[in-house]
Amino acid sequence: MINELDALRLIGERFSNSGKGVEVGIGDDAAALRTEPGKLLLVTTDCQVEDVHFIKSIISPAGLARKSVAVSVSDIGAMGGVPKYILASLGYTKREDDRFLEELMRGFESAEEEFGVKLTGGNLSSSERIFLDITVLGFVEPECVVTRSGASPGDVIYVSGALGDSALGLMILKKGGKEGQGRRLVERHLRPNPRLALGKALADEKLATAMIDVSDGLALDLKRITVTHGVGARVNVERIPLSGDYRAIAGEYTDDFYGPALSGGEDYELLFTSPPDRRDEIMRLSDRLKIDITEIGDVSPGAVLTVTDSSGNEIALREGGFVHSGS
Amino acid sequence: MINELDALRLIGERFSNSGKGVEVGIGDDAAALRTEPGKLLLVTTDCQVEDVHFIKSIISPAGLARKSVAVSVSDIGAMGGVPKYILASLGYTKREDDRFLEELMRGFESAEEEFGVKLTGGNLSSSERIFLDITVLGFVEPECVVTRSGASPGDVIYVSGALGDSALGLMILKKGGKEGQGRRLVERHLRPNPRLALGKALADEKLATAMIDVSDGLALDLKRITVTHGVGARVNVERIPLSGDYRAIAGEYTDDFYGPALSGGEDYELLFTSPPDRRDEIMRLSDRLKIDITEIGDVSPGAVLTVTDSSGNEIALREGGFVHSGS
Repeated sequence: MINELDALRLIGERFSNSGKGVEVGIGDDAAALRTEPGKLLLVTTDCQVEDVHFIKSIISPAGLARKSVAVSVSDIGAMGGVPKYILASLGYTKREDDRFLEELMRGFESAEEEFGVKLTGGNLSSSERIFLDITVLGFVEPECVVTRSGASPGDVIYVSGALGDSALGLMILKKGGKEGQGRRLVERHLRPNPRLALGKALADEKLATAMIDVSDGLALDLKRITVTHGVGARVNVERIPLSGDYRAIAGEYTDDFYGPALSGGEDYELLFTSPPDRRDEIMRLSDRLKIDITEIGDVSPGAVLTVTDSSGNEIALREGGFVHSGS
Repeated sequence: MINELDALRLIGERFSNSGKGVEVGIGDDAAALRTEPGKLLLVTTDCQVEDVHFIKSIISPAGLARKSVAVSVSDIGAMGGVPKYILASLGYTKREDDRFLEELMRGFESAEEEFGVKLTGGNLSSSERIFLDITVLGFVEPECVVTRSGASPGDVIYVSGALGDSALGLMILKKGGKEGQGRRLVERHLRPNPRLALGKALADEKLATAMIDVSDGLALDLKRITVTHGVGARVNVERIPLSGDYRAIAGEYTDDFYGPALSGGEDYELLFTSPPDRRDEIMRLSDRLKIDITEIGDVSPGAVLTVTDSSGNEIALREGGFVHSGS
């Protein structure tokens, strides 16, 4: 079992308080941070709960720490910002021991390096289930911030990377899939890669009118940047980018071939809208960053989401999308 | 049961995004906040877990929201800062309904007004037990920030208000105490009052060399501003400020009369050190703010905490102090 005082000492020693911008770090009542003059402060919080967002047997403590940071910094990227500081509030049960905490801290250390952030504070609580609530602070130029609300009819809808891999990877994990098969999909579920560089570039070049990261599935997250703000979206399902592994394996795990791509969550790709006359710039950015960016539809006047196939036949959406809840 | 999408809509409507300094508020990937030029950003996170930090039957949802904000802003006050923004990450179980959420939000609204903060973001997760993780952002002048590490031998140790009321109030609640008796103590447990004005004034006037809020008990929190940083503390137990209710009732609930005051948690009074030549200024501040400030001992050279009575006899401290854990 974890002893809170020992754990706090360990964490304090491990995460030194030096670091650019950190005036007071871990171990005081609050962290004191120098802000960046003229920039907007971005702040977001996201929580991973055991048996709701993750199952302890299929992700290592280090993997859990990394993923919890990855999905939280992703929100900063979706605003066009750069993440800088994180705080971690951990709930742990009587079943976790010092090794769990040690590995979790190792995951935070590697996440600090990978995402360019600094752990500056946190909290430990005992709990009936593990939870890990991550707060991220980041910065963005005020004139560059990209919200969910700027899409106009006529804008093109783009998505980065490929969709549905993570949801399919989770299905494989849950069904204990065949050895080796879909390993890359499982990896995409366990180690999502937030598109920080792309989000910042789109913001810096003012290429995106609205943007969100796909955490709850394309259908639901697309509504959040269109329908919620009074405009509609038309998507051609056959244009949704699917990985080769997805195309090869999806049929074995679902009878709804496009289901994981349309409604599966946790891809953390960027979904954004952009005026049609910026198409060439988008494609040049895609080349430069070596990140696929695919046009999947356009923004329409009525506040409704329509998904069609290439012949124009409408596809009925199954309810919802992947809302993070226990059900 | 709470529907996450409906709940998010409700919260979005309720907490409007207007507000000084809020560029983008609730409902986007991250809040975008204008920082205050030349000031340090303070950030802290604190979590209330059901059956660990609170019992659902003895605190209302609105009371829980208020208390979770109160204890978190208290950390900002203990650095000498002013809290400005909060984020709330809520874990809720299948047992909570829309009314719970509605009341919780009412609690946040009143806390916004009481503590001068603005709810700018958050997160909802289903969970096996309720948890409420609050992140607070605040600001302080860089030259005024008060940390836990500045105490020097010879400094006087002060504490605001009275200690032990909250721990005694919790004992009364747990034992279902007599009707009416100790009501003020129970109130002190359920509705702690963070000393924001005092913390800021001490910082502005550079009166405190080290400061902390008493959340885990005097003994433990005093070590955090002395022993942890290589100096010691000598406290006269008879000088610890106790309320009249405490003196009247403590004997009925514990055989360790000073126990709740020495090791009981959650008083959220300010504990700080200050050079002896600033005594008059401290007392003038106490008069001006109408907050009792009591001298309870002094900082000594060896890194050890000693508690004595007025005759100089040493008092053995029972282990620990009130660390927030389930045990």
